[in-house]
Amino acid sequence: MNRPKMQSVPLKNIKICDNFWNRYTNLVHKEIIPYQWAILNDQLEDVAPTHCLENFRIAAGEAEGCYQGAIFQDSDVAKWLEAVAYSLETHPDPELEKLADETIELIERAQQPDGYLNTYFTIKEPDLRWKNLREGHELYTAGHFIEAGVAYYNATGKRRLLNIVCRMADLICSLFGEDGQHIDGYPGHPEIELALVKLYRATGEKKYLRTASYFIERRGKEPNCFVEESKKPGYRRIFLENNEYDPYYAQNHLPVRQQESAEGHAVRAVYLYSGMADVAYETGDDSLLEACKRLWNNIVNKRMYINGSIGSSAYLERFTVDYDLPNDSGYSETCASIGLALFGLRMAQITGEAHYFDQVELALYNTVTAGIGLDGKSFFYVNPLEVWPENCIPNTSRSHVKPVRQKWFGVACCPPNIARTLASLGQYIYATKDNTLFLNLFVGNQATVSLDSGELKVRVDSRFPWEDTINIETESETGCMMGIRIPSYVHRFKIAVNGDSVQYTMKNGYVMVPVVQGKSRIDLSFSIKPRLVYPNELIRACAGQVAIMRGPLLYCIEEMDNPTPLSSLIIDKNTSFTEQWDSALGGMITIFADGWRESSPKGAGLYHEMPCKREATRLKFVPYCFWCNRDPGEMRVWIRAL
Amino acid sequence: MNRPKMQSVPLKNIKICDNFWNRYTNLVHKEIIPYQWAILNDQLEDVAPTHCLENFRIAAGEAEGCYQGAIFQDSDVAKWLEAVAYSLETHPDPELEKLADETIELIERAQQPDGYLNTYFTIKEPDLRWKNLREGHELYTAGHFIEAGVAYYNATGKRRLLNIVCRMADLICSLFGEDGQHIDGYPGHPEIELALVKLYRATGEKKYLRTASYFIERRGKEPNCFVEESKKPGYRRIFLENNEYDPYYAQNHLPVRQQESAEGHAVRAVYLYSGMADVAYETGDDSLLEACKRLWNNIVNKRMYINGSIGSSAYLERFTVDYDLPNDSGYSETCASIGLALFGLRMAQITGEAHYFDQVELALYNTVTAGIGLDGKSFFYVNPLEVWPENCIPNTSRSHVKPVRQKWFGVACCPPNIARTLASLGQYIYATKDNTLFLNLFVGNQATVSLDSGELKVRVDSRFPWEDTINIETESETGCMMGIRIPSYVHRFKIAVNGDSVQYTMKNGYVMVPVVQGKSRIDLSFSIKPRLVYPNELIRACAGQVAIMRGPLLYCIEEMDNPTPLSSLIIDKNTSFTEQWDSALGGMITIFADGWRESSPKGAGLYHEMPCKREATRLKFVPYCFWCNRDPGEMRVWIRAL
Repeated sequence: MNRPKMQSVPLKNIKICDNFWNRYTNLVHKEIIPYQWAILNDQLEDVAPTHCLENFRIAAGEAEGCYQGAIFQDSDVAKWLEAVAYSLETHPDPELEKLADETIELIERAQQPDGYLNTYFTIKEPDLRWKNLREGHELYTAGHFIEAGVAYYNATGKRRLLNIVCRMADLICSLFGEDGQHIDGYPGHPEIELALVKLYRATGEKKYLRTASYFIERRGKEPNCFVEESKKPGYRRIFLENNEYDPYYAQNHLPVRQQESAEGHAVRAVYLYSGMADVAYETGDDSLLEACKRLWNNIVNKRMYINGSIGSSAYLERFTVDYDLPNDSGYSETCASIGLALFGLRMAQITGEAHYFDQVELALYNTVTAGIGLDGKSFFYVNPLEVWPENCIPNTSRSHVKPVRQKWFGVACCPPNIARTLASLGQYIYATKDNTLFLNLFVGNQATVSLDSGELKVRVDSRFPWEDTINIETESETGCMMGIRIPSYVHRFKIAVNGDSVQYTMKNGYVMVPVVQGKSRIDLSFSIKPRLVYPNELIRACAGQVAIMRGPLLYCIEEMDNPTPLSSLIIDKNTSFTEQWDSALGGMITIFADGWRESSPKGAGLYHEMPCKREATRLKFVPYCFWCNRDPGEMRVWIRAL
Repeated sequence: MNRPKMQSVPLKNIKICDNFWNRYTNLVHKEIIPYQWAILNDQLEDVAPTHCLENFRIAAGEAEGCYQGAIFQDSDVAKWLEAVAYSLETHPDPELEKLADETIELIERAQQPDGYLNTYFTIKEPDLRWKNLREGHELYTAGHFIEAGVAYYNATGKRRLLNIVCRMADLICSLFGEDGQHIDGYPGHPEIELALVKLYRATGEKKYLRTASYFIERRGKEPNCFVEESKKPGYRRIFLENNEYDPYYAQNHLPVRQQESAEGHAVRAVYLYSGMADVAYETGDDSLLEACKRLWNNIVNKRMYINGSIGSSAYLERFTVDYDLPNDSGYSETCASIGLALFGLRMAQITGEAHYFDQVELALYNTVTAGIGLDGKSFFYVNPLEVWPENCIPNTSRSHVKPVRQKWFGVACCPPNIARTLASLGQYIYATKDNTLFLNLFVGNQATVSLDSGELKVRVDSRFPWEDTINIETESETGCMMGIRIPSYVHRFKIAVNGDSVQYTMKNGYVMVPVVQGKSRIDLSFSIKPRLVYPNELIRACAGQVAIMRGPLLYCIEEMDNPTPLSSLIIDKNTSFTEQWDSALGGMITIFADGWRESSPKGAGLYHEMPCKREATRLKFVPYCFWCNRDPGEMRVWIRAL
């Protein structure tokens, strides 16, 4: 039996007004959605055609031509629609809604009579439908459409896309099963699981939850579905053809309940775990939830970069082993950090424990934001902690690392994923349960919240993460509770209600404050100063180095502010930090520290016997999320320290 | 017009008797040649079948079946025969010679009537002959056969293999040319160039030199031959099919004379440059020699690891950019160091300058030797400077790094290449010119040398690299000169003749000593102590670290001698070193140094704010070439230093 969990507050009830986040969230409707629409429609001259909507026109019989693009190209359209839905909730825009409605109509016309929806298989490989689940991405793409359908219905009340995805979901539920009469399998790339739970929640249709549960339970059990399908007539490789089969890659090396460590393709992993958490909650399955906790702990305690990114191997974009976190060659895909945030959000809401938000906040404030340029039109797929532009050259082991953000990608999962994440940032800010409103992120906003005891209007005013006072104004119908998350980097805080300090209790990482009927004001203050962060000694790649953080923000040094090579710079561990407000990039706090620059003696060869010289220098740090928004060049998070 | 160059002394005239090298050279006839013969014949149960000789039987019409193995599988047989030839010169063995003769007869039967010799194309792709030079490896394989043919003729006086390879070479010379009537192209993998010069030298047939010169001059000029061949009817990809074409990969991005930096696949590069040096010498072409010098300088001053290995990117096994030398993920192929030694040998002999041997010695004493286990039956293809076995897992970006030597490889270029290199070590020791014998490597040996002035018997007695006195006994018919190389790590030396210090001159890095008629004795002594070596500040991967060398030997720390993680260890730059003789592995000098181990505070998480503890510890270093010959585990060359 499931215990009620925390719920996000509907996006339409939250208006974000935040110094840090508005530079991103304002981009969504102004820049990102129109820009991505142009790309989906091949309207930009300097971006290679994506063929995304053209594939739908061809599948609908309204255009001639061949399918073009990655096997999961449809999902970019789905993620764009999902972002549009979230945007419409907070920024109504009739023209955009019309565009979305027309796109949905096109999708409907591309849907097959039996409900099947996937332009790759419809146009190019109709005989391969459901035959290569390991690589086909049909269930993955379906999952993104389902998420879009639910989001669009929630935002607009319109059912057309919801009906489309229900027909596809009905088809999937009718096709899959373990009884020998159905297709016995699960997706190579998880996503359908969490999507089907969303659809179950939106429609109440239990078969969606059952099928999500089946996909999760079947995974990793013998006989291995991917091995079995490869023996069937008509099977053919269709993606990454040269790779040998590695069950870790798609997390089907063991039944999910037995998995102890996060393995394989990082995005697949966190999407799977998110679906597992959803199913565990809806079915009240504690042992499945325990597996989720184990996997979360393995990630955040042993396999996560300090910027909240995951995936240490560029080859297969995957987890490797505990403490293997190379700074200059890891993968750290933006989508994987988005998935980590989705997973953490679910775990926090199910368990009611605030600590999950330490990593959610890390991923959102650092990697998701680094993944998009402040122009809204350029993106990082890979988010390394150390970049030396000269060695990021094509056709080498370093070619996945880009020293500047790219306009778009051949496999373009990240840009629309960032768009939908920014557009739905509100879901992370609050959670409600019973008579309590929980504040998870210190994002400035105004919200109207329904609690069991009645409506609560709340306004969060802060200049976080730059400043460390959070002012919360409340207006409660009946009185209620407020739980405010105290992040791990806050060691001491003060809290006052209407100017008076109060008795408070701590519960699961939240400071619990009673909110009286009528108007009231809560002031939370703590101290966020720059801090030195040391790596665990088992992270070989970081030995002898430290990083600088300030609140949730990771800092880095960039070539335009510091002498190169950045590897020659050493920070004095006893430095006092100086903070300075810099109006660049929409405003940021920069940090200065004392240190040295070490240099080879003049005329030294490649290797030499003469000791190095060391001269004092001042190091300038900027927030990692903003890196490469000014002059491109070397960047480094971990700095040698003495 | 070419000026006479230094010549190597025939192997049959040198008997190596050396504390360091005999542990390897004795393996050649006792272990390596029989072991590799068994592998070529698929006789070992625990090594995957190579099908090497079976391919020849099939091509000869004496067995049924399909071709199996890499496209250049034949070259393993050729390199084995070349190693056998060198071995027979120094260790006559009638049984082995009979086996070689039978193999040569089989090769002859597999040769086609027109002289064509390549079992892959003969059996599997007869229609693709010469159609895909970029990937086909036909000219590469032919080059290795030619080298074997010349070596076997020199060793035994038998012409059968020489005749076979002359027929193949004649075919090649008749087919290729730039006049529009012939195939206009050059090999994707250089090797034929240096081989054809060897064949020219063995036979005096000038067309071999002309064709070698054509291959070199044509390379990199427009129109690009690899692009042109790909447009021709019948063209098909046959190797690394998924890779896009990168002209740098096979060094045809520019005409060779215009190339300023070592680019692309490292083995291909140094084989090409060796062929360029040969042609430059034989044709007296100074501008081609200048290109060789530029490329050599680029490698050794900017793109070479401290162990004399090259190739920074595992993907495409290639050079990247200056100072990009990652320690834990580079390629550093054993074959590339062999090629570097071959290139340096040529440059030293042509220019008469000893400094080329600094890197030849480095490659031979460190990487070539590390490439083979002291059992003679296990091999490293990749020679990293930092290994953490736990993260060397399959299907990741680190899967090319093996934490223990492998029995054999799918692409098995390195083991037979090591065999032929060890079997021909003698070619590196001496060089003669006019009336002078030059000693390049301090390898204990006895030799009989023909100089213009008559015969010189010489005996080098030393315990180098462990000890630093070299005793040379000479017996000269008429009196002559001896030039002894003074390595770059020798800053001061003493030299005495018959016990008396002598006036000497230095020339091109050699100390020149007159050798009187009759018996005489030269004593060279210098001091080889452990030394700290600093990396150039531009090598980002080595910042803050130092390496220990002693004479030509690079040292490393291994897990079995030191606490882990090795990244937590710090050497005191002011340490005094203690040397200790260790009888393990045939005897070696181990080095102890003072330092510290830095550890995270107890219970520290992945990232923490508590400073690390540092406690004094003693570090134990062993020669890098011997690493992983005891218990496997972590290994590290560059050590953090304070």
